[in-house]
Amino acid sequence: MVRVDLNCDMGESYGAYRLGNDKELLRSITSANIACGFHAGDPAVMRSTVRQAVESGAAIGAHPGLPDLAGFGRRRMDITPVEAYDMVTYQVGALMAFAIQEGAGLQHVKPHGALYNMAAASRPLADAIASAIKQIDPTLILFGLAGSELIAAGEAAGLRTASEVFADRTYQDDGSLTPRNRPDAVITDPEASVAQVVRMVKENMVVSLTGKLIPITADTVCIHGDGAHASLFATTLRSRLEAEGVKVQAIQS
Amino acid sequence: MVRVDLNCDMGESYGAYRLGNDKELLRSITSANIACGFHAGDPAVMRSTVRQAVESGAAIGAHPGLPDLAGFGRRRMDITPVEAYDMVTYQVGALMAFAIQEGAGLQHVKPHGALYNMAAASRPLADAIASAIKQIDPTLILFGLAGSELIAAGEAAGLRTASEVFADRTYQDDGSLTPRNRPDAVITDPEASVAQVVRMVKENMVVSLTGKLIPITADTVCIHGDGAHASLFATTLRSRLEAEGVKVQAIQS
Amino acid sequence: MVRVDLNCDMGESYGAYRLGNDKELLRSITSANIACGFHAGDPAVMRSTVRQAVESGAAIGAHPGLPDLAGFGRRRMDITPVEAYDMVTYQVGALMAFAIQEGAGLQHVKPHGALYNMAAASRPLADAIASAIKQIDPTLILFGLAGSELIAAGEAAGLRTASEVFADRTYQDDGSLTPRNRPDAVITDPEASVAQVVRMVKENMVVSLTGKLIPITADTVCIHGDGAHASLFATTLRSRLEAEGVKVQAIQS
Amino acid sequence: MVRVDLNCDMGESYGAYRLGNDKELLRSITSANIACGFHAGDPAVMRSTVRQAVESGAAIGAHPGLPDLAGFGRRRMDITPVEAYDMVTYQVGALMAFAIQEGAGLQHVKPHGALYNMAAASRPLADAIASAIKQIDPTLILFGLAGSELIAAGEAAGLRTASEVFADRTYQDDGSLTPRNRPDAVITDPEASVAQVVRMVKENMVVSLTGKLIPITADTVCIHGDGAHASLFATTLRSRLEAEGVKVQAIQS
Repeated sequence: MVRVDLNCDMGESYGAYRLGNDKELLRSITSANIACGFHAGDPAVMRSTVRQAVESGAAIGAHPGLPDLAGFGRRRMDITPVEAYDMVTYQVGALMAFAIQEGAGLQHVKPHGALYNMAAASRPLADAIASAIKQIDPTLILFGLAGSELIAAGEAAGLRTASEVFADRTYQDDGSLTPRNRPDAVITDPEASVAQVVRMVKENMVVSLTGKLIPITADTVCIHGDGAHASLFATTLRSRLEAEGVKVQAIQS
Repeated sequence: MVRVDLNCDMGESYGAYRLGNDKELLRSITSANIACGFHAGDPAVMRSTVRQAVESGAAIGAHPGLPDLAGFGRRRMDITPVEAYDMVTYQVGALMAFAIQEGAGLQHVKPHGALYNMAAASRPLADAIASAIKQIDPTLILFGLAGSELIAAGEAAGLRTASEVFADRTYQDDGSLTPRNRPDAVITDPEASVAQVVRMVKENMVVSLTGKLIPITADTVCIHGDGAHASLFATTLRSRLEAEGVKVQAIQS
Repeated sequence: MVRVDLNCDMGESYGAYRLGNDKELLRSITSANIACGFHAGDPAVMRSTVRQAVESGAAIGAHPGLPDLAGFGRRRMDITPVEAYDMVTYQVGALMAFAIQEGAGLQHVKPHGALYNMAAASRPLADAIASAIKQIDPTLILFGLAGSELIAAGEAAGLRTASEVFADRTYQDDGSLTPRNRPDAVITDPEASVAQVVRMVKENMVVSLTGKLIPITADTVCIHGDGAHASLFATTLRSRLEAEGVKVQAIQS
Repeated sequence: MVRVDLNCDMGESYGAYRLGNDKELLRSITSANIACGFHAGDPAVMRSTVRQAVESGAAIGAHPGLPDLAGFGRRRMDITPVEAYDMVTYQVGALMAFAIQEGAGLQHVKPHGALYNMAAASRPLADAIASAIKQIDPTLILFGLAGSELIAAGEAAGLRTASEVFADRTYQDDGSLTPRNRPDAVITDPEASVAQVVRMVKENMVVSLTGKLIPITADTVCIHGDGAHASLFATTLRSRLEAEGVKVQAIQS
């Protein structure tokens, strides 16, 4: 049976600052990527988000980012692979402690923002991240951009990986995402987004901007938690996938 | 046979900033309290300090502090017990990941600075810290001031505890430390410090400022890592304890 | 003619995090207390908030806080007067540069949260803050709780001061605010809040919880920017004050 | 008469962490670049460093960096020109307040580390920095790498600039510094360093790695404050320059 995981970034509040609709999104998604305090999240938010994920039955993942709260981890920083190894270790460990306290285990690790993008393109960074995860717990699943260096590094390290695809982003002929600074980078029509996901999941294919059918691995779909209709879109997508006979469940299931 | 643990705060460097003589002190001490990034330490320092401790054979402990790098965790902050629970969880988890990577386990947790002092006097804070540790790993040993609320909380939670004494601090008739703002708070003569420790360890007694013999539990002795003669004092103390027939080893041994 | 200033905390967003309704509130208030990056605010937010204040005609003030973003500057920290002097200097200077760039000057300084409360009760802290401000610019106006040590320190330093009162807080017989942990600390009825302000401004009196008339100096009224009805309340209060013949304008006017 | 300024980065301590030999170096140098709390320095350190500079007679400059204490401001971050404008404004303002308190004015601004290097190569970043400085105080002098975009941007903005040269770095045929990852990037012989500076100052020429004479503007020489012999080198360099008839004094003099 065809299956897919729906993941979403969560736990991005910080102190007095609230962000996201974690509670609503947890009704539809199956894997929660929880911020670990570097680009978003704080210890209190981490604990409560882990609890919410446990209650909803979502699998828990660490979502480590660059140490840049003001930039929300979205600004590239010129870090070395060793620095990436250390940052990821620190953050995964911190979240792991909250997961243990709540009687849960970590399912996965998905780097955030600029770290995700940097690791998608740089094999040395990707290798360092994969190695950090492997040394903490070899059963952790590494989430990364489908076709990226991060997925390759995870496989080379002997980790289980999950190739991530995007509902609302367009793809180019080489299977890569259209850069965000291009006007045709984002799919704004929800119905088109859903259709793209269904095809990616059921046929392992995506239609590129030029109209070509490109092969793609779609283990997990990234649901954006921001935006007014995030929760509605997640519900719609899940219903459609299930109506299409796709089993929506966490990777580890 | 009489035995005692010698512990020392370590891994207090940060980025370009160097602090302490961890390498030299690791020759004499048996338990390393490693800073976890809130009051001192960063991910790179944590990894290298864990490695050094493993190489030297010292037991590894987490040394969580208040989120105050500029104040080195020494300024009291008005935090709630829940905040203490979350801060300790986060930091213990972060260090635990580095320990796992290096093939080591955590032996203990010792709060740092103002958090240590606040938890020594406040049972609600102490209970929260003990609970956080218990929920992560019930075999972790809680280090706290001998006779303090933190030790009481650890025992009440069912944790193994280690009562900490100080070589260079004077004690009052009620068994508490003389406050630091008093001129007679600190013992400056190394020989008197050594003698105080030997008596505390062998006789479970300390001579108070007024000359009374006060009962005290001395499971572990705090060695200060700063100061020009820290390493020399640690070597001297260890030699004297061993010459007195005391077995110097980590609590978990 | 009777006059009063309406002040409000502003510029409390941070990075990706949005807080407050500065734009709407700026239609009613006359003095903006702008966060300076320690408890809230970041350089980008400071610049844009200064610009908005200039456009709306509100006077600009620095709103320095404790270095505790996660706690929003609301957790007391055990800082020395010298540390208070340095923290206030740093933050006032940072905001001053943005004000200069926008062709505006700073009107005032109002400490935030725990720093405000600590300085209200501790004369040494209050003196340090007054001194820091005086040394930067002796024409800056110090905002502080009416009847507090901070107002006394400002006057002793030769600074112009503005005594602050609260619309939605009850007062005790000694003129102090009822502590927040008491159930009768807050006035929830907007009409009662408005009436309290009108009396404080026009008669320099407030009715205490026990029904006594207590003298109070009301140079400026603190308008809370959070809450769903903050902006509506500010509009209502300003209208009522003006209908009562009170001139609503910034202190410096 | 030929003249030159000697500048040095200062005030890089943070909290309990000590760095540099500011006091000794202030005997030889004429312009102090004082860290402003983002990559190094804290409010207490800024105040005491300003005081030391005032006492020694050195001119005071702000040394703003990227918000990366753990990386000491040496890791490139992908910031926008607007972010650079805001960061520089914030930090220059903070230092300016301390300078005002000590009865001194700011002479100059010199970006630090990665921000310095990024602004040397990117005209948009350089323009943003120059604009921020101009809008705060058009009499501030902008220090930048000789021949860089930062100097060009400062001149275009109508700021006075000071072209900086390095005593211990080699130059390439196009007048740029040899990248640090090359083995011949650094001059390790103090005598050769002194000779290079004397030639740059007196003849406005530098001998490139290939032996060519390249024109260079040497308004100010960067003295590195770290290293065991930093202070001795500064003394030696100053003596030699004076013996060669060069007037060693701050740019503003």
